[in-house]
Amino acid sequence: MSKPLRIGIAGLGTVGSGVLGLINNNADLIVARAGRSIEVAAVCARNKKRKRDIDVGSYKWMDAQDLARAPGLDAVVEVIGGQDGPAKDFIETTLKNKKHVITANKALLAHHGLALARLAESNGVSLRYEAAVAAGIPIIKTLREGYASNVINGVYGILNGTSNFILTEMRETGGTFKDVLRSAQSKGYAEADPSFDIDGIDAAHKLTLLAALAYGIQPDLKAVNVQGIRRITARDIRFAEELGYRIKLLGIARRQDGRIMQSVEPCLVPRDSALGTVDGVFNAVFTEGDFTGEAMAVGLGAGAGPTASAVVADLIDLARGGPNIPTFGIPLKSLVKAPRVKDKDILDTYYLHLIVIDRPGVIADITAILRDKSISIEAFLQRGRDPDQPVSVVIVTHETPRAAMRAAVRDIMAVKTVVEEPTLLRIEQIQATP
Amino acid sequence: MSKPLRIGIAGLGTVGSGVLGLINNNADLIVARAGRSIEVAAVCARNKKRKRDIDVGSYKWMDAQDLARAPGLDAVVEVIGGQDGPAKDFIETTLKNKKHVITANKALLAHHGLALARLAESNGVSLRYEAAVAAGIPIIKTLREGYASNVINGVYGILNGTSNFILTEMRETGGTFKDVLRSAQSKGYAEADPSFDIDGIDAAHKLTLLAALAYGIQPDLKAVNVQGIRRITARDIRFAEELGYRIKLLGIARRQDGRIMQSVEPCLVPRDSALGTVDGVFNAVFTEGDFTGEAMAVGLGAGAGPTASAVVADLIDLARGGPNIPTFGIPLKSLVKAPRVKDKDILDTYYLHLIVIDRPGVIADITAILRDKSISIEAFLQRGRDPDQPVSVVIVTHETPRAAMRAAVRDIMAVKTVVEEPTLLRIEQIQATP
Repeated sequence: MSKPLRIGIAGLGTVGSGVLGLINNNADLIVARAGRSIEVAAVCARNKKRKRDIDVGSYKWMDAQDLARAPGLDAVVEVIGGQDGPAKDFIETTLKNKKHVITANKALLAHHGLALARLAESNGVSLRYEAAVAAGIPIIKTLREGYASNVINGVYGILNGTSNFILTEMRETGGTFKDVLRSAQSKGYAEADPSFDIDGIDAAHKLTLLAALAYGIQPDLKAVNVQGIRRITARDIRFAEELGYRIKLLGIARRQDGRIMQSVEPCLVPRDSALGTVDGVFNAVFTEGDFTGEAMAVGLGAGAGPTASAVVADLIDLARGGPNIPTFGIPLKSLVKAPRVKDKDILDTYYLHLIVIDRPGVIADITAILRDKSISIEAFLQRGRDPDQPVSVVIVTHETPRAAMRAAVRDIMAVKTVVEEPTLLRIEQIQATP
Repeated sequence: MSKPLRIGIAGLGTVGSGVLGLINNNADLIVARAGRSIEVAAVCARNKKRKRDIDVGSYKWMDAQDLARAPGLDAVVEVIGGQDGPAKDFIETTLKNKKHVITANKALLAHHGLALARLAESNGVSLRYEAAVAAGIPIIKTLREGYASNVINGVYGILNGTSNFILTEMRETGGTFKDVLRSAQSKGYAEADPSFDIDGIDAAHKLTLLAALAYGIQPDLKAVNVQGIRRITARDIRFAEELGYRIKLLGIARRQDGRIMQSVEPCLVPRDSALGTVDGVFNAVFTEGDFTGEAMAVGLGAGAGPTASAVVADLIDLARGGPNIPTFGIPLKSLVKAPRVKDKDILDTYYLHLIVIDRPGVIADITAILRDKSISIEAFLQRGRDPDQPVSVVIVTHETPRAAMRAAVRDIMAVKTVVEEPTLLRIEQIQATP
């Protein structure tokens, strides 16, 4: 048998311990499939004594920078986490020392992916990150290899399990965002500081990587329009349901006239559609390729098991002698800066939820504003009557340029009888199957 | 730039023409992603003059056996089709001449996969077949690479688009199997001789390949229990709907106590489940891995576009210098003969549709038989009353060994008031999401 693939693991939290557990647990299977074993030659972590599910005392411990420089290692796994600091230093040193790097660190890649890809390329090693996006779905491999012959026209993903869990719970229990978030935190589905998840930042990190791979563009987090789910109310979810939709936090990277629109935002998707039925902590990615057509994959987005599975898949690729495919699918010099779609050219249908004082003339004021911006109305809902009190009004528009829609919302907010900030959500008419 | 990957294409029907079209259409993209171009050095087909969507006159034409032996080719694409004859001869000669083979031919692989894998292995070349199963889903790559670190416990697939289209149309229109089949034939969704599709044979070919990859077993078509959809009636579909299910032709390869159960049969799946919502010509594969958990992928199963996309994905893998992963994921000598699960150990819940003469005592006779076989009833439906005329009775059982269920059906058929052969369908309780 060939000699083992010798690796180091940096970071022994949930994911790092999961990787060790998987390598031990399925060792025979890995040998059969990879043609050689994976040998964990060294590990590093801040705290050797921390309580872990598995015994890590028998491994060789090193300082991170020493591990990055250690001779005789074929590859290292970075699961330290964090968009800067030790993780970044570690990966940089490792690549400079001509070792392959496997990471689950989407934040780091979204911020520094281009510079790290340059380091990998100039040192002739690969930087792999299947675990960084929707771990239970091999979406990096699918875009980079499975659909490699396709011009991709659209990528739409439920990329954050925590947000999807919260939106699902709100729908099923009728609870408020705050209550459901608290309950998710107590169950361990949301962090004590939930901002990365619920404000769309984590999804934006992942979308940046998917868009770079799908379109051959430089990863550019700043090009992503980001909006989270904090302002979604139980009432929005009920109205959406009534209109035949569900609200999902989507990462969208859409090709349009040679430009790319990148956005993370809560959207309405048809209730019975493939994305509409993906609930709880599951992730999903819908793609459209020019030859392969529409396709979707669903799987667990996070957790020790799926993440470890994705990390070890990258290791098995290396063990089998897989080629150094460029970090973002094509050589760095071929990656283009994504030209962004202008707001006036982004056409969408919209859901607009207003709280207005129930008084004669309000609707006339609002519809006059929409008419002046050439926005036509597809549906109009008003539930309940309560003279001189705030009531909900929901408007669904026909296709409207984003710029016009935003201008209309500004004007509507200036109407005295409109109280509170309106909720404006894009409707994504993704086909029913898949 | 590196020198082109030089290939030959054998067969220029819909798929072969599609491959040529894709290679021409997306040539620049392929160069960017593969690092080199794909050059079609020669082609062969029975009829040069046949009308095709693209002009094939400018390619170098050869006899199939000459193409298989032609020096200077890196790989050939076999899209002749057929489980024996010219396609088999062509692939054998090509492998013996140490050229990689890419094929979309599931029938051939299901029948001769083991022998062909032996030829590929002994000649140090690879036999790739992403296009052979659910072309729009990279499921071969996903099992062989993406989930390579996982013990797979279950694979459940909607593997035949024609059958799924027919079942969907029957549900949506209420039409009979015969009428819907005829309409599918006139639309080009079903062949003039539809047997391969509707009798489950095509799905069994595909399942054989998925099971071999998932479980490291020798592909063995004879180990698959095969039942098609000819006997499904509009009434079965309505009853299923009423019980909260949909009928899907599933390919199932399930691990149980170290043994493998392989089956293609129409099953009831929960209406709102991931598989239950996959309609029309779409394919889907649901997998369960020990670390990655439950996952599902949906995409188009056939057609020139998706099939060509999958063929060219395999070519791009080769062009990038991808390793010769063994045909069924692990070396031939490690593939085991699958021990089959015994009928008495296959536990399932069942849907049983009987046509009985509406007469006092009939139900007592049937339920006595079930009681004698220790089969317990979860639901019982009888619609309409029509004394002394045939009426439908549907029974849903609790978990029952397959052997006991079959024995009970035999006894029930001997009851004089039971007319027509009963319809017995397995219920697959696959989870809601994914």
